Formats: sequence, structure tokens, C-alpha cells
Amino acid sequence: MITHQEALEKVLAHSQGFGTISISLEQANGCILAEQVMADRDFPPFDRVTKDGIAINFEAYHLGVRDVPIQEIAAAGSPQKTLLNATACIEVMTGAMLPKGTDTVIMYEHLNIKDGTASIIKEVKKGQNIHIKGSDEPKGSLVLAAGIKIGSAEIGVLASVGKAMVTVKKMPKACIVSTGDELVGVAEVPAPYQIRKSNSYTLQSALKEQGIPTNVVHINDDKANTVKQLKQLLLDYDVLLLSGGVSKGKYDYLPEAFDALGVKKVFHRVKQRPGKPFWFGRHETLATTIFAFPGNPASTFANYHIYFLPWLNQCTGLSTKQEIQVLLNNDFDNPTDLTRFARAKVSAVSGRLHAQLIAGNGSGDLTSLTKSNGLLRFEPQKNYGKGSQVPFIPTRKPFL
Amino acid sequence: MITHQEALEKVLAHSQGFGTISISLEQANGCILAEQVMADRDFPPFDRVTKDGIAINFEAYHLGVRDVPIQEIAAAGSPQKTLLNATACIEVMTGAMLPKGTDTVIMYEHLNIKDGTASIIKEVKKGQNIHIKGSDEPKGSLVLAAGIKIGSAEIGVLASVGKAMVTVKKMPKACIVSTGDELVGVAEVPAPYQIRKSNSYTLQSALKEQGIPTNVVHINDDKANTVKQLKQLLLDYDVLLLSGGVSKGKYDYLPEAFDALGVKKVFHRVKQRPGKPFWFGRHETLATTIFAFPGNPASTFANYHIYFLPWLNQCTGLSTKQEIQVLLNNDFDNPTDLTRFARAKVSAVSGRLHAQLIAGNGSGDLTSLTKSNGLLRFEPQKNYGKGSQVPFIPTRKPFL
Repeated sequence: MITHQEALEKVLAHSQGFGTISISLEQANGCILAEQVMADRDFPPFDRVTKDGIAINFEAYHLGVRDVPIQEIAAAGSPQKTLLNATACIEVMTGAMLPKGTDTVIMYEHLNIKDGTASIIKEVKKGQNIHIKGSDEPKGSLVLAAGIKIGSAEIGVLASVGKAMVTVKKMPKACIVSTGDELVGVAEVPAPYQIRKSNSYTLQSALKEQGIPTNVVHINDDKANTVKQLKQLLLDYDVLLLSGGVSKGKYDYLPEAFDALGVKKVFHRVKQRPGKPFWFGRHETLATTIFAFPGNPASTFANYHIYFLPWLNQCTGLSTKQEIQVLLNNDFDNPTDLTRFARAKVSAVSGRLHAQLIAGNGSGDLTSLTKSNGLLRFEPQKNYGKGSQVPFIPTRKPFL
Repeated sequence: MITHQEALEKVLAHSQGFGTISISLEQANGCILAEQVMADRDFPPFDRVTKDGIAINFEAYHLGVRDVPIQEIAAAGSPQKTLLNATACIEVMTGAMLPKGTDTVIMYEHLNIKDGTASIIKEVKKGQNIHIKGSDEPKGSLVLAAGIKIGSAEIGVLASVGKAMVTVKKMPKACIVSTGDELVGVAEVPAPYQIRKSNSYTLQSALKEQGIPTNVVHINDDKANTVKQLKQLLLDYDVLLLSGGVSKGKYDYLPEAFDALGVKKVFHRVKQRPGKPFWFGRHETLATTIFAFPGNPASTFANYHIYFLPWLNQCTGLSTKQEIQVLLNNDFDNPTDLTRFARAKVSAVSGRLHAQLIAGNGSGDLTSLTKSNGLLRFEPQKNYGKGSQVPFIPTRKPFL
């Protein structure tokens, strides 16, 4: 058995890229940008009026002019106007091009306007209320670097520079595989000795959050059939996420089936709880990576976050760092030689991240996962006192 | 002008529900549960074997029996077996029903098996390696309460209790409206005095993250046309998110258009920066809520997070708390009488949340939004020293 750290390193060493794809801007949220995005023009593209009011020539103001006749109005979206007389002004709207011959904007609140003449009633600073051309980003500058995850703010930038189509990283073609004769579908009424599938739904939902649509298949505990079904899945997909079938049971056929199909076992079993019987392998020729998680819901859920997500991030070029340091609210002793991953709820209180352990009932207990927002990682044979800093792997988004 | 706090209270006072809808489990991630979900059977539904090995009658072990002939195999997914002789055993697989007449499971690692007989080579504790029926959740207990946001863990629980269809909160029918004659589409080449739309794309992307598909329309700076288009939108949608058209400009027709259409203005202009010219109203008869944000990208982005998201959460029954306390890395003075919302990047370091201010270039600057993960809120006329606790509104998910 290898340690959690060794297992994570081996998983990350088996990453691969899946190429890129051009998609429409509307689809790009959550995707990973795969091109350098430059400003196609200056931002702002012209000296832009930032207040509704008038534009003047400051020199005239400096020389004492306070009452300025309004020549005309410059609206946003209109071609640039020109001030014909330096002692007059042009009425300007937010977003308009600053008129030629003007260099300063005075907002309505600092004016009295009567009979077509604006009287300036407050002190004016040269150049005020103008967003200078190119001051945010000059033309040609890098506004978004390849490799970032696109959120709403990036969508706005992409729109601004005219990226109607965006090149993003392709996600792996993924298939979720449940195993075990005890499993029935969610819409079925289980016999007393059966349970409903849950891992498939959990994984499908989690992968959907990553922008990965998945197919879901079930394999019964039959050796010949397991080999036959897996053979096709290895051909069809970049990555398989399986649950069950990797323990020491008589009907846990996955390891030998993968062996028969030429899949390299990278490791089987990790010194951790939950999630110990994790099997990880790779078919090099077919370039298919296999995450075969133990069947218990808490084990599958934990290992998805501990191993699969960092692997996915490595494949797509995102940071593989998945832990943050939090402060423990409880004592926790780990006398075992296993890395322990304990469910916890982390809250932000007064600028500090406090972790409250969530009592669980072993790796079969699914409901305690709904009360936690991540997993604390405890080293083997180490005791932790209240207030200790402990690494935390979030499994849910906010700390609110 | 009202304060930010007053504005937020008024926005939250104008929330409403949008009913519920039944959707398939596969669609439910990110939705808000609108029913109490009970365990439809005990969890686990039977005394469940948790290790591959053998099941014995502990009394026989207690009386000294160490070599137990294997009667048969109990697989997961098979009907319950019965141990016929208390000094024998049944080979059991993880997930199987514990056989009648047995009460203790011994894993393979603690056995020598030869010629159909298992020899017990390690001390055994009565009842070990059994997940007791109903010990996670007894039948009829509440496993998920109405009002929670459904994530992957909840999807697993819903699957386990057979919820192929789930009742969730309906989201509002939302329309995004851009205004301003200076705007052109993302695929167009703007004239020197034009800019591309970005707010519409940003808002559409942000609402998509909330599970709300949106239509997007544009209204030109024409008064009659503005009234006509808004009239139809008020009829068709639960909520409108507009950008632009609410400043003091000659062509900022939105406030008077809404007035002409019988929309109650709840407030216009808030003592804050960015986002001051925010207009908020409600058509009570049509039950349409209107968020008319200022046109600058940073203003729209900020006000979406400061006002719209808490409103949406209030409407769907989620917590409206959107701030966490973080620790300021910089000094910040706010001599103005405005609440300041400053872009910042918060990182978790050693269990503490540190906020680094991101230099921006006024409310027109979109690229600085891509470098931040939220907004710090600074009270009017207050100075903040390094290390101060400041409320932070996340605009992006993780702190990793």
C-alpha cells in the first residue's frame, strides 16, 4: 500500500491534455481559456466622458470664463463633436467621445443652466471626469492569459474585445460506471437486500459542475461481461470513473478485468480512510485513465475530490492545489497509520476559517456529507489539538 | 439619496416567491429543494457487511471455536442466507446482507482459508464490521430539509431514497436589457465612438451560474421606443436587469419610462461608489421587479452582487447573508460620504482570510474585475488600517 501523498503524485503524473475547441462566448463560463486574449483597441477606445454635464476648454475657465453658452449636445454613440469657440461648451453625456477642443467635464450638479448657457458654480480641475483613451488597457496588451478559468467578469472582458468565439480547453470524454449486483435504479423499489445507486448520480452531478457531461453505465458482477463492457468503454472514453468492485471480495472483478485488457495498474489501495481500496490505472495505447473508487458513497465522494479533481486540473492546466489551511475547533487523534479524511464544516468567522468536525457513521454514511463542506486531512499517527492548522479540501463552494 | 444599507433593506423587502416545479434528479444540481425529503426505508436497509471475509456466530468463537467450515457465499445483492450450524461460517462480501444466525464479520486479512475452512488468526470483537440497519437514518427520518441548495452530496442522498423527481423552487423569468446608442454587438467592429456590449454578457453568464436562463434585449436611446419595449418586457418577465440609462443624461429615459408604465420607483441613486445611479422599482400589479444598474461594467457587476443576488436568495428562501469578514492587507481611507466597494483578492493563508486591494481605474475598468475575487465594503467617512476586519462580498467561488 502506498501513502496518500504517493498516490496523489502518481495520479498527477498520469495527466494528459485533451486539446482545444472553439465555442461561442455564451457557452464559455466555467471553461478554461486556451488562447491569449489581447485588447483589439485601446480601452477605453476614446477619451470618454464619465459624467453627464458639459465639456469645456479649461484654458478659458482658467482665464476667468464662468458662463459658457451651449453649442450642442454630444450623446454617447455619436461621432466626435468639435467645440468651435473656446469660451463656449458642449453638453456631454456619459459614454460620449470628449469633443475636440475640450479637455475638462463638469457635471450637472456643479452647473446652473438657463437659456442655453451653463454657469459654473463649483471649482473645476483640469481634465476632470474623463476616462483617458487607453488608460485601462492599450491596444495589443494582454487582457486575459491562457489558462484561466472563465467566470462572469472574464465573459465581460471577452465581449469587450470582440471575442464572439473563444478557444477553450476541451474536457475529457468521461464515463461513470457503477458496479455491484446489489444496486437498483433510483426509480425502482429495492428488494430488502438491494440498495439504490447513488454514486453514479453524485459523480454525474459533480462532473457536470466541472462542465463535463457524462454517460452512466452499470456493470453486473459477472467476469466475462465485465471484461467485455470495459473493453468498449476503454475505446470510447478518455477517463472512466468507477465505483465498487475493487475490494477483496470474490466478485470484485475490476482489477483482473483491467489486467486482462492491458490496463497498467498504477496502484491499488492507499493508506487512507475513507477510500482505501482505490484502484488507479491507465491504458497507455488507448490513452484512457481509470479511477476505480471503492463503492461506499463517502469513499467515492472523498476520492473524487482528493484525486480526480486535481488530476482534471492538471490535465487542463489549472492549479492542482486543492487544500487551504483552516483552524480546528475540535481535538482529533489519528493513532492509525492511515491518512484520515474527516468531514467538516468550515465557516469564516472574524477573518478566520474555523473547521467543525461533522460526526459521521463510517464510509457508508451519505447524509453526513450533506452537513459538511469539505474534508480535513489528518496525517497518520498524529494528534491534533483544538486550534491546530489543518489542510482542508473544500467539496462545496462558499463559506457563507 | 439613501444609504447602501437602506437600499439593501428596500430591495429585500420587495422579494417574492416564484412557485415550485418538479424536475428530474439529473437536473437538480444547483436548485433549491422545495420539499422535505424523508428516508423511505432504514439506512442502511439491512445489517450490512462492511468487509469481505466471513460472518460467524460470536458465541461459538467465544466458546473457543477457531476453525470454521464455510457453508456458502453471501454476495452483495443476494437474498439473505442463514447459517445452519453455529460453529460454521458464511463467506460474505462487502454490501451483502448479514446472514441469519451470524453477528460478527471477520475480514480476509485476519483469516487463513484452506480446503473450505477458515481459521481465525486475529482477535475478534463481537459485532465488528457490520453497518447496523437504520444506524445512519431510520425510516421516516428527515434526510434533507426544504430550502437547502442541492449539490452533489445531496444528489446522492436523493438517489438513495428514490427521488427520481424532485420538487425545487422555480427561478424567476429574467430578461437582461442593455441600453445606450454607443453599444454594438460582440461580433461587430465598433466605430471609433462606439464600444461593444459587455454588461449583457456578464449578467447572462452570472445568471446562468444561478441556474437562470435569460433573454437579452437592447433598447436604443429613444423615448417612445423605450416605453414600448419596456411595456412588453414588464408583461413577459418576473425580473428585469437593465444597465445604463439611469444617470442624469439627456437620453437616460428609463426612470421616466418606468414612471409612465406605472412602475413604482422604490429608490434612485444610492450613496455608494461604484454603482451610485442604481434605480430600483417594482410593478406591483404585474409583479415585476426592476434592477436598473448604471452602465459602467464595474457598477453593474458590483450591484448585481450587492443587491440582486441577496434579492434572489430572499426570493428562493436561501440566506441573504453575502458578506464574510476578512483581514485587510492594506490601509484604506474613505473620506467620502459614500459606501465604497473596492475590488480585492482574498486568499486563505494559515487559516486566515487576507484581502489584497486590486488597483482599479474607476467604474469603467473591467479588467481589474478579472484580478479580484470579490468586493470589500468600506463605511463612509472611516479609515481602515492594515489588519482591520472588513466585510467582503465574494464574486467568485474558491479562495484557492
